[in-house]
Amino acid sequence: MPAPTTWLDVAADDPFGPATLPYGVFSSSDGRPPRVGVAIGAWVLDLGAAARELDAPFADAVDAPALNPLLAAGPATWREVRETLTAWLADPAYEGALRPHLADRARVRLHLPFAVGDYVDFYSSEHHATNLGRILRPNQEPLTPNWKHLPIGYHGRSGTVVVSGTEIVRPMGQRKPPSAAEPDFGPSARLDIEAEVGFVVGSPAPLGTPVPVADFAEHVFGVFLVNDWSARDLQAWETVPLGPFLGKSFATSVSPWVVPLSALEAARVEPPARGPEPLPYLRDADGQPWGLDLRLEVRLNGHTVARPPFAAMYWTPAQQLAHLTVNGASLRTGDIYASGTVSGPGAGEQGSLIELSWNGAEPLELPDGSTRTFLRDGDTVSITASAPGAGGATIGFGEVAGRVLPAEG
Amino acid sequence: MPAPTTWLDVAADDPFGPATLPYGVFSSSDGRPPRVGVAIGAWVLDLGAAARELDAPFADAVDAPALNPLLAAGPATWREVRETLTAWLADPAYEGALRPHLADRARVRLHLPFAVGDYVDFYSSEHHATNLGRILRPNQEPLTPNWKHLPIGYHGRSGTVVVSGTEIVRPMGQRKPPSAAEPDFGPSARLDIEAEVGFVVGSPAPLGTPVPVADFAEHVFGVFLVNDWSARDLQAWETVPLGPFLGKSFATSVSPWVVPLSALEAARVEPPARGPEPLPYLRDADGQPWGLDLRLEVRLNGHTVARPPFAAMYWTPAQQLAHLTVNGASLRTGDIYASGTVSGPGAGEQGSLIELSWNGAEPLELPDGSTRTFLRDGDTVSITASAPGAGGATIGFGEVAGRVLPAEG
Repeated sequence: MPAPTTWLDVAADDPFGPATLPYGVFSSSDGRPPRVGVAIGAWVLDLGAAARELDAPFADAVDAPALNPLLAAGPATWREVRETLTAWLADPAYEGALRPHLADRARVRLHLPFAVGDYVDFYSSEHHATNLGRILRPNQEPLTPNWKHLPIGYHGRSGTVVVSGTEIVRPMGQRKPPSAAEPDFGPSARLDIEAEVGFVVGSPAPLGTPVPVADFAEHVFGVFLVNDWSARDLQAWETVPLGPFLGKSFATSVSPWVVPLSALEAARVEPPARGPEPLPYLRDADGQPWGLDLRLEVRLNGHTVARPPFAAMYWTPAQQLAHLTVNGASLRTGDIYASGTVSGPGAGEQGSLIELSWNGAEPLELPDGSTRTFLRDGDTVSITASAPGAGGATIGFGEVAGRVLPAEG
Repeated sequence: MPAPTTWLDVAADDPFGPATLPYGVFSSSDGRPPRVGVAIGAWVLDLGAAARELDAPFADAVDAPALNPLLAAGPATWREVRETLTAWLADPAYEGALRPHLADRARVRLHLPFAVGDYVDFYSSEHHATNLGRILRPNQEPLTPNWKHLPIGYHGRSGTVVVSGTEIVRPMGQRKPPSAAEPDFGPSARLDIEAEVGFVVGSPAPLGTPVPVADFAEHVFGVFLVNDWSARDLQAWETVPLGPFLGKSFATSVSPWVVPLSALEAARVEPPARGPEPLPYLRDADGQPWGLDLRLEVRLNGHTVARPPFAAMYWTPAQQLAHLTVNGASLRTGDIYASGTVSGPGAGEQGSLIELSWNGAEPLELPDGSTRTFLRDGDTVSITASAPGAGGATIGFGEVAGRVLPAEG
């Protein structure tokens, strides 16, 4: 498929060129409430206003304060909206109608793009899980016996999913170092990041109807970036026997732009070889793998500290969705799930500081001469990603960023 | 406080007498959409219609298809609504206005009473946690080292919270008995119940504002019953290292009636002695304990199999809420949390079949001559509860019930 073109002045290698067309929710200084927008080059198109102006049949689904109505509209509408947008931006005949609905992307405020239903966090990088196993359980097999049989996951707190740019207050909580007799209470001393990739459900599935691997793209609308902030000391003390809770629930940041799955056809790759062979409900659909060649980049105070490769993930998002629903659990529009920390096999490919600093034993050196094991107050973390798009285009995802504020209380 | 009275024909010991006044959402055969109702004796009062008719200032909060607007209105409105209802039902002058808005409770359909935000499940019965530890980890200390320092909890799936009466399809999933080399896939063979008590948040709390133990009743509106259906075999295989997931996420049933906290003043009791002393943020507010003397009853196919005493819970709901928010996690209207399985120290006081049958070693005998370890297809489980109310009244909670259907697929 050749790269789409546009009458707008957008560089061929712009990550938000006409091959990307991600959806978000924005507001500007005009006082109007937040509304759905599409990023193109340096602009954001007010999609609802444009659809009204051009009498698009999908106007009701996109003239909204969140992506949820578009998500709920289902894959036929998703295709129609994207094809229409592509045509509008390619054909100069639409320039007059659309120009008034373009805002300067540098001057808009971006909001949480969807109302979140449930939030599930997986743990699907073999490299990450192995590293964590080696660090946290050094005398045991690094992977638990179930790890290669199912995508391990758990539910997170959907009410504390926040949009990129939201400041992250260092959480308070109970910590108990192995050497201490009793826990004490105070700010997390081991605040970490987890660079992940998120997926948002559009079409719901009723209770009792598992979604097979092959139906992934019928239900999942698109992809975004996630920073699953993690207080390692709170988590370590609370996590046995029921898993992470307060160590994760204080905040999960997401990028404001959702890249539709249909922008990622050229990024689909075979996942790594898996063995033992997964049970039938988890097998890749024939010839239709959902490995994705997203290259993530993690910056700490502007300095690149990691380049995690999403293509190295053991379980694909299609397998994750099939697993999530195989017990009959329903899906709602706005349910999201995240991949788990993305870590590759190579040096500097790890998506968390606990891995990059090997639990603090090997501090990172930053260009300003300082070192890091875990995050300091004032640190800013930004995660970006790119992927191959149609006709050699680059697909961008924007960024998910957040600055750490001191603990309160 | 004396028991309130009413001009309606309600027996003094009716669990839904005028001391209870629980809120729910109902519909009837008149074709009108679901709306907020209050149970009183054999009737349900259409609260929105009554409030409109009598020009009550809170009409907007209760003329709604779910409890959420009332929950969001906050404690001053909660008090006003209850005081007004109590006055209406006590004074025969209101009979003419209210009679037309009373429906036969036996003929209405009850719906999920609230739109659920997040769902957290705790694990706060020492007896339950000790029993599970002995059963599942026989060679270790039954309680993990953190258990008496914090209320262990995790997030469940809010999208699969269903109202009492919803049929429960036996979930499919991966099971691996210890003797098997590999997991297989099939229907859960160890489907269990967990009899719990739930709490629903009314007033929200923004990110970064922990809710102290003393502020519990400013945020929590009321109490309901929960059956946290659990597939023990799925759960056992998946749960290490990140906790329960598919073993729980297929369904969580809740009772349709929410009993306001203000109906439970006479049920407040001192919780059991706790030691080691909890950290300051978890200490009971002076003289204001939130132990609650709810007596649960679990019936299997109509036969009482357990009478779990909620007063025996180690951590109170006020402590649970303080813990849940101490890291700065926000609360939304409609967030719910459950106590964890309620089990007492005595015989027949356990709220789960894995305890009652000691992991299958001691099958329960039912009056029809059959035995149970875990649930069979066709089994119906019902959980009810009562508590002391004002002036010697009995506070009822209705029931949460569900029937098990065979696995599909």
